[in-house]
Amino acid sequence: MILQTPVIVVNVKTYLESTNIKAVEIAELMEKISRENGVRMAIAVQPTDITLCVQRVSIPVLAQHIDPINPGSHTGWILPEAVKAAGAVGTLINHSEHRLTIADIDTCVKRAKELQLDQIVCSNNIDTSKAITAFSPHVIAVEPPELIGGDVSVTTADPDIVSGTVNAVKNLNKNCKVLCGAGIKNGKDVKKAVELGADGVLLASGVVKAADKEKVLRDLASGL
Amino acid sequence: MILQTPVIVVNVKTYLESTNIKAVEIAELMEKISRENGVRMAIAVQPTDITLCVQRVSIPVLAQHIDPINPGSHTGWILPEAVKAAGAVGTLINHSEHRLTIADIDTCVKRAKELQLDQIVCSNNIDTSKAITAFSPHVIAVEPPELIGGDVSVTTADPDIVSGTVNAVKNLNKNCKVLCGAGIKNGKDVKKAVELGADGVLLASGVVKAADKEKVLRDLASGL
Amino acid sequence: MILQTPVIVVNVKTYLESTNIKAVEIAELMEKISRENGVRMAIAVQPTDITLCVQRVSIPVLAQHIDPINPGSHTGWILPEAVKAAGAVGTLINHSEHRLTIADIDTCVKRAKELQLDQIVCSNNIDTSKAITAFSPHVIAVEPPELIGGDVSVTTADPDIVSGTVNAVKNLNKNCKVLCGAGIKNGKDVKKAVELGADGVLLASGVVKAADKEKVLRDLASGL
Amino acid sequence: MILQTPVIVVNVKTYLESTNIKAVEIAELMEKISRENGVRMAIAVQPTDITLCVQRVSIPVLAQHIDPINPGSHTGWILPEAVKAAGAVGTLINHSEHRLTIADIDTCVKRAKELQLDQIVCSNNIDTSKAITAFSPHVIAVEPPELIGGDVSVTTADPDIVSGTVNAVKNLNKNCKVLCGAGIKNGKDVKKAVELGADGVLLASGVVKAADKEKVLRDLASGL
Repeated sequence: MILQTPVIVVNVKTYLESTNIKAVEIAELMEKISRENGVRMAIAVQPTDITLCVQRVSIPVLAQHIDPINPGSHTGWILPEAVKAAGAVGTLINHSEHRLTIADIDTCVKRAKELQLDQIVCSNNIDTSKAITAFSPHVIAVEPPELIGGDVSVTTADPDIVSGTVNAVKNLNKNCKVLCGAGIKNGKDVKKAVELGADGVLLASGVVKAADKEKVLRDLASGL
Repeated sequence: MILQTPVIVVNVKTYLESTNIKAVEIAELMEKISRENGVRMAIAVQPTDITLCVQRVSIPVLAQHIDPINPGSHTGWILPEAVKAAGAVGTLINHSEHRLTIADIDTCVKRAKELQLDQIVCSNNIDTSKAITAFSPHVIAVEPPELIGGDVSVTTADPDIVSGTVNAVKNLNKNCKVLCGAGIKNGKDVKKAVELGADGVLLASGVVKAADKEKVLRDLASGL
Repeated sequence: MILQTPVIVVNVKTYLESTNIKAVEIAELMEKISRENGVRMAIAVQPTDITLCVQRVSIPVLAQHIDPINPGSHTGWILPEAVKAAGAVGTLINHSEHRLTIADIDTCVKRAKELQLDQIVCSNNIDTSKAITAFSPHVIAVEPPELIGGDVSVTTADPDIVSGTVNAVKNLNKNCKVLCGAGIKNGKDVKKAVELGADGVLLASGVVKAADKEKVLRDLASGL
Repeated sequence: MILQTPVIVVNVKTYLESTNIKAVEIAELMEKISRENGVRMAIAVQPTDITLCVQRVSIPVLAQHIDPINPGSHTGWILPEAVKAAGAVGTLINHSEHRLTIADIDTCVKRAKELQLDQIVCSNNIDTSKAITAFSPHVIAVEPPELIGGDVSVTTADPDIVSGTVNAVKNLNKNCKVLCGAGIKNGKDVKKAVELGADGVLLASGVVKAADKEKVLRDLASGL
């Protein structure tokens, strides 16, 4: 696994504030704060923006998604090999905004392993986290969908889902890392996540929509 | 419309032979032959490869797909603005390998128009071509799915679908261009397409999987 | 076409208040009021409930959906032949809660015609209504998704979408009937729909969730 | 769990040979042979045909699918409550012809448990079977998709997937039953399945497309 933990992963989604050069700007800020504070950070960007970011920063750049396909006749889908060639070191899989069938999660994890792409598979609760452990991904990121994009952090609204996922997953596979996400906004949320046993956090709007991104990133970093 | 007709559009799909630097190589060959022969060519590439190609060639570079979304919280989907910012001048929509609902085709065409991205909407028969004309896209590309990737060109296997689509579409909207695709392999197929009233062709494996891509592209160009 | 217009079509969806015997009860009420007032009514029920309703009422019973398949190996999908054999005389296609690709709408309309099932194809705006006219279905039902289930009738909130759809559709095919839906609640809404040129209405919660269904149905009937 | 094992489950899919009254005829044959031979059998039918079958036979009748929904505004989807009200005692979930996201499998199993519907969740390999065990369904049915509908039984083509699934699943949850399917045609295949540790079989075309269904069912029964 290229990603090391504990880690703060920022998924910049498809906001205008994080498209093309603006994704690079966020990545550069993250790299700067990562270096200054010695805190590990990684960014998940749109497929159009992977190479742009990889050319400009040395923090790990991830894809937001891969499709469960082999090279071939698949117009407009995301080929794992293309994401690798563009320079990504890993990928999110099964984000709550991009759910996959169980057979396709299995295929995506296997394809990513073949290509040595790190896998962060998202889940929505303790049971699905346990299920995903069967595929031995590097990381499982539990995010209750109803809290995503909201004002209250999962660590406050539902701390049991974090500690419960950590326990369930590590009980099945102690090498599997666990992130938590949904509503993460500041260093206090990050600190709480780590106290609950998580290996880091996954967040999006908390950084992307912030008026002062640098300040938010510094605050998040302070929690690790 | 940036795309001018008649035109040969090569959709390089997600083949290994057309990923990353290999997409650029195909684009460079197309540009060379386009310049030498004065024949218009355009290439539709994977989202990861748009900027790479745009930086190296001046023929029109298209996306293979956009999702029917506005900027926002949509992990791993293809934002029209991202495709535009990456340098694409247009996009395929509703390829037979990436079908959309009718409401989503409507949204994709409207979003592409907002961003001044050319639209090539794919259809599978005369009736769906007529239906798509209601959205006034720049181009409709009719491709019978059963002939895609096959050895017999649509212009030979089913010439009536080409002329029938041309008549049906232009009868509703004389400004709408019509391409045909599926099984197109050589200059004779291109010539026949034009004789049947098409404004060009859309092809993929005929170029991407060819042992000698330059020779095939020259032959195709000879048909216009 | 078995359905005659003007008509009030009640889509009972998958509410508990309209499942199994409760669907039959609504169908019986509709039949009673239809007979008393001479107003045509039809009901669209869940697949499990088609035969139950057909055995008890003589108003037209419709399916809420068919899948674009031929008989064969398709576990858990809705076979048009099964809907026909169960006794339905027609089907909704492409409801806003069950969108289909354009190729699949084409297939569903063709399959329904083969089996002499009436087709009510739903659309979301004027442009998609025009597109659907290319398939020559018996009926197009325009329903702006943002108004479905709401408190304000489409005839009040957006009368132009009703008259605009009627004009656009009948201009292309004068035999194609047009219904409107979304937020329809009472006889005044029905009357307004007819004044705007519609051949009837499609509604759901206005009947299904009503405390006094008979009273609401009578009121609706008074509008025709 | 209403289903007792060992059991032969026939999924009649959406064949013409198993629609409406023909589904009843197969169910009646199964009931007859089940009684004569003391072998447990269950049938999974189209939603339109559940009540028809339940009214005529006393063997367990299952749905082929439920959607991950609560009662409400969901046109044309399969409501678990509707399947229950129609008389089904259980349901297939996640058949290879009807794959669900992992979050939706979780929801379907939970909804079925709420309604006391037995759950047979289909999987495609050992890893996905292990994953599904996290949801504690009554039964997991492993079926390699490439063998479904084929001439060679999974018990011959890939016996390790059967014994491997049995071991993996029962190791995690000894109460979870395991069926195997794909290419099952005769009593020898059933016998082999049981020898490999399975609690029965799931089959479709082997019965539905047989010229002499009674003979095939008797032969299958002989294997238990």
